[in-house]
Amino acid sequence: MQENLNYKLKQVGIIKTPYQDDAPYQPIDVDDGEFCIVVNDQYVDGLNDLAKFRYIYVMYYAHRITREAEMIVSPPWAEGKRVGVFSSRSPLRPNPIGLSVVRVKSIVENRIYTSGLDVFDGTPLLDIKPYIKDLDSKTDANYGWVEEMDDMEHLILHIKGIPHNY
Amino acid sequence: MQENLNYKLKQVGIIKTPYQDDAPYQPIDVDDGEFCIVVNDQYVDGLNDLAKFRYIYVMYYAHRITREAEMIVSPPWAEGKRVGVFSSRSPLRPNPIGLSVVRVKSIVENRIYTSGLDVFDGTPLLDIKPYIKDLDSKTDANYGWVEEMDDMEHLILHIKGIPHNY
Repeated sequence: MQENLNYKLKQVGIIKTPYQDDAPYQPIDVDDGEFCIVVNDQYVDGLNDLAKFRYIYVMYYAHRITREAEMIVSPPWAEGKRVGVFSSRSPLRPNPIGLSVVRVKSIVENRIYTSGLDVFDGTPLLDIKPYIKDLDSKTDANYGWVEEMDDMEHLILHIKGIPHNY
Repeated sequence: MQENLNYKLKQVGIIKTPYQDDAPYQPIDVDDGEFCIVVNDQYVDGLNDLAKFRYIYVMYYAHRITREAEMIVSPPWAEGKRVGVFSSRSPLRPNPIGLSVVRVKSIVENRIYTSGLDVFDGTPLLDIKPYIKDLDSKTDANYGWVEEMDDMEHLILHIKGIPHNY
């Protein structure tokens, strides 16, 4: 089977965040800084009508990853639990493409101001898609393997991005 | 600004669907065929624990797209409405990477059986991510520009993938 697709990714824009050297593991619910997606000029018309959506998907290239992907990973907040990489949101995966759901605050020309984004400042933007009610908001979703952990309640604080100090 | 990222996509597997020449615009809620994601052998350990999630994200490369992306598109079910490409789920976008949320039915070795997937048979798989309660299920999501359409109720049937004949 073909291993490499003959296709190069285009950089559609850049993501600006307060995270120069440390990024949180998940989007933070509190707005402790400015999060802004800057779209390259030639793509700005593609943003028409986007501000009408409450949430959007942001797809980006995890450009700071230099190691090879491993099939078994241990999420840093999951206390040693080892899971398959496709059961995790680790950026260290065969294609290091990240995905976040964020709230749209405002769009001014080619700049989209959003709720917290758990990426490094300067991360290349690959795509934006509307997050559509019903199609994307599955009310019966679960927490997967996290539900089997002894300290599930604590881990869910991490998933929700709620600050806590224990 | 750098336009092409120096990175080639890896094919992680292949998606098998009943759609040889016609694919629906959105995932169909009814299970009118077999939908199966076949992961390449070297990635099979990455599927550990994935069956514990009710929903997963499937990321794929829309390999049948040959035209250049346009910034303004007209979704085929939206009766002439023209919107920015980033406000649509059109596969004709700067990076033709598709995203679907599907239900996991079962996983047998390297095969993931899922609910309906709106892609052509043979579509290259790029990534699978867990769809995690709270992180991804936004209960206050909206329909964006669709809410301004006269026949919103009808259009929502399309979004939900509910078959109808008017």
